[in-house]
Amino acid sequence: MSATFSSVDISDVRFPTSVSLVGSDALNTDPDYSAAYAALRTTDGDAGYGFVFTLGRGNEVAVAALAAVADLVVGLPVDEALANLGAFSRRLTHDSHLRWLGPEKGVMHMAIGAVVNAAWDLAARRAGEPLWRLLSELSPGQIVDLVDFRHLSDALTRDEALAILERSAAGKDERISNLLARGYPAYSTSAGWLGYSDAKVADLLSQAVASGFTHLKFKVGLDIEADVRRLKMVRDLVGPDILLSVDANQSWDVPDAIANIQRLAAYSLYWVEEPTSPDDVIGHRRIARAVAPTLVATGEHVANRIVFKQLLASGAIGVCQVDACRVAGVNENIAIMLLAAKFGVPVCPHAGGVGLCEVVQHLAMFDYVAVSGSTEGRWIEYIDHLHEHFEDPVRVANARYRAPRAPGSGAALLPGAVAEFSFPSGPAWVRAGRTA
Amino acid sequence: MSATFSSVDISDVRFPTSVSLVGSDALNTDPDYSAAYAALRTTDGDAGYGFVFTLGRGNEVAVAALAAVADLVVGLPVDEALANLGAFSRRLTHDSHLRWLGPEKGVMHMAIGAVVNAAWDLAARRAGEPLWRLLSELSPGQIVDLVDFRHLSDALTRDEALAILERSAAGKDERISNLLARGYPAYSTSAGWLGYSDAKVADLLSQAVASGFTHLKFKVGLDIEADVRRLKMVRDLVGPDILLSVDANQSWDVPDAIANIQRLAAYSLYWVEEPTSPDDVIGHRRIARAVAPTLVATGEHVANRIVFKQLLASGAIGVCQVDACRVAGVNENIAIMLLAAKFGVPVCPHAGGVGLCEVVQHLAMFDYVAVSGSTEGRWIEYIDHLHEHFEDPVRVANARYRAPRAPGSGAALLPGAVAEFSFPSGPAWVRAGRTA
Repeated sequence: MSATFSSVDISDVRFPTSVSLVGSDALNTDPDYSAAYAALRTTDGDAGYGFVFTLGRGNEVAVAALAAVADLVVGLPVDEALANLGAFSRRLTHDSHLRWLGPEKGVMHMAIGAVVNAAWDLAARRAGEPLWRLLSELSPGQIVDLVDFRHLSDALTRDEALAILERSAAGKDERISNLLARGYPAYSTSAGWLGYSDAKVADLLSQAVASGFTHLKFKVGLDIEADVRRLKMVRDLVGPDILLSVDANQSWDVPDAIANIQRLAAYSLYWVEEPTSPDDVIGHRRIARAVAPTLVATGEHVANRIVFKQLLASGAIGVCQVDACRVAGVNENIAIMLLAAKFGVPVCPHAGGVGLCEVVQHLAMFDYVAVSGSTEGRWIEYIDHLHEHFEDPVRVANARYRAPRAPGSGAALLPGAVAEFSFPSGPAWVRAGRTA
Repeated sequence: MSATFSSVDISDVRFPTSVSLVGSDALNTDPDYSAAYAALRTTDGDAGYGFVFTLGRGNEVAVAALAAVADLVVGLPVDEALANLGAFSRRLTHDSHLRWLGPEKGVMHMAIGAVVNAAWDLAARRAGEPLWRLLSELSPGQIVDLVDFRHLSDALTRDEALAILERSAAGKDERISNLLARGYPAYSTSAGWLGYSDAKVADLLSQAVASGFTHLKFKVGLDIEADVRRLKMVRDLVGPDILLSVDANQSWDVPDAIANIQRLAAYSLYWVEEPTSPDDVIGHRRIARAVAPTLVATGEHVANRIVFKQLLASGAIGVCQVDACRVAGVNENIAIMLLAAKFGVPVCPHAGGVGLCEVVQHLAMFDYVAVSGSTEGRWIEYIDHLHEHFEDPVRVANARYRAPRAPGSGAALLPGAVAEFSFPSGPAWVRAGRTA
């Protein structure tokens, strides 16, 4: 008898990061980085892992959403699901009841993404390969079968996607060798949190430059005068050759975004990230036209491929920041990477949080090998925290992500970390005396 | 000591509507119309009511989201909250942790809307007025204080909103009298569900026309040949003077939408609703230009005021279908009505479901009295089911909603209905022998 999915074990894991102000920005002032963590188990006894990343409060809502997705998955035959992860993913995103709760956005969509990612983690473990390599070795036809072209065909048809992938098929082996030898470029956000003092920023900055980073990102958006002052300080410290980007975390309306970016651009900005609401396609386009050559970047809060379609096709963004855990998992990220390739926009994944670095590196490396074929103008975000809790933590050396070699997607937490940081009953929370 | 919010009692209420195919359309083939129902209680012993409408599966996720919102509300002073419902609503929508789960979209946002609506229900009960009248009697300055202009100012400033309201202040009393005497126009969707046979459609159609309806809506989108055939049948039955609209429930990609609407327009369409993804602003604009003079309508799945801003400002829709329970409650609906007024687009609220008719009538009547000042080209959707479970059910006579006179927002279910249809342990579900 063939194996079925036996359960989805769900854990509410929270790290008390608000104590250190790691992760503080214009909108997120005191996050406790958290994960609604799913272990998709089979009757064969193995499992794949995925998670919804959250900021603390509300992690239990993501847990409830995972349970609703689990109801659709438990009992399905494993081999059939893994052999056609396109159909598996569409079955979840188009469930006629759950779809009402988005559609294709918010907590429900994030939970679907976590379960889709867990199925990919399982597939990669069973194949004995890291996810980036499993994906890269699929044929162009197999890759387009993973994509849901619904509501995309005005911008990207299946045939156009196939042509993009076929063009990039040449040179795949060489790019895989490159990755294994040299890794993938990273940029650093570690120095730039809003809650940090000038002295701490200067110290972290020097460390980042000494470690080889040539592209650094800073948080802005609470107070433009303070932003200008700090950016000037940073530019004076690092000199003209380091790329500097800023992240406003949606804090501006469109007219303010344009005025503020024009002021900050005096210190030579590479990109401005989340200048305004992630839902504002037309606003992003207005900003992009007004602030060129500074690039407009967004993605970590963009709900789905349909919003990305508009951002990319209309020239509203010059940098596409896919997030492993916001959209419906690997499959929807492939759709977005294909759209980005069609419209010539580099993919620079959002990372940080809990385990986002571990997971998005697979997506960026697949993009390089099989979709865009390039690392030009591309970096994976790097933030140095919480990696120690993962089974296969990222390895970043000389500002490059080393290509993962262990089987899987990178999403698996160490069992000890899940126990220690389970909320509210794990030892870390009992010790902290905090239940919220 | 002044009263505080003592609890939010949350119920998982589901009606087994899938048995009758009421509510069947191109995307929603077997809904069990449901509500995650919240009673916002005070230490004074009174309460206000609100709910998230869902299609069945996943209602428990909305219940979990309501509990997360309740954590932010319980303990707050009631008088202060009700005296400044603008601040109350912004406190919930901009909670720095919960916002990550949207932002401002999906289950979390819907749950915030339910609690905001429950606060308004309480305010109207305490004022002894129906909600539409309480809102209508606020001054222009009080109304703009309710609105969150964040991410709107490129399209609508506070001053512009104030000017719109001041212009409409003249004639308020006359419009209130009109409403009380004559009610508000309705259109009917009751005859047009996809799961119904031709004979049942023809029968319901005759009943609707006999009851005075001059505007009817039909579901399309599964099969264009069948849609054309049914629309021809309907047009032949009703003659040229009845307005006919269709609702595709997002089933088309943009190019198909244009081609299909052009075929259906042979039978003289008034509006086409949800031709494609609700997230596709640019797609809606392309469709609107191609199918004029047929109007493009959408809204029941539009996540927030920022997406509405773009749809309205760019001419992508000619009919704005606000939904009482998708966006963050009364406050965000006021923002959307002001945007619609600025761009000259009629508001025709989405209704049906569980209690949507009961609640949206208050919004449409407020729009008429205080915002747009007109019922020209405006109707509230009417579907005749589940009203019997509400404390103050809608009264529709001669195709017009009678103005509600009872205090409150219309959201309160009868306590007996909550008990009977509680899922999965209520008597209705135990009898049905179904737990999913």
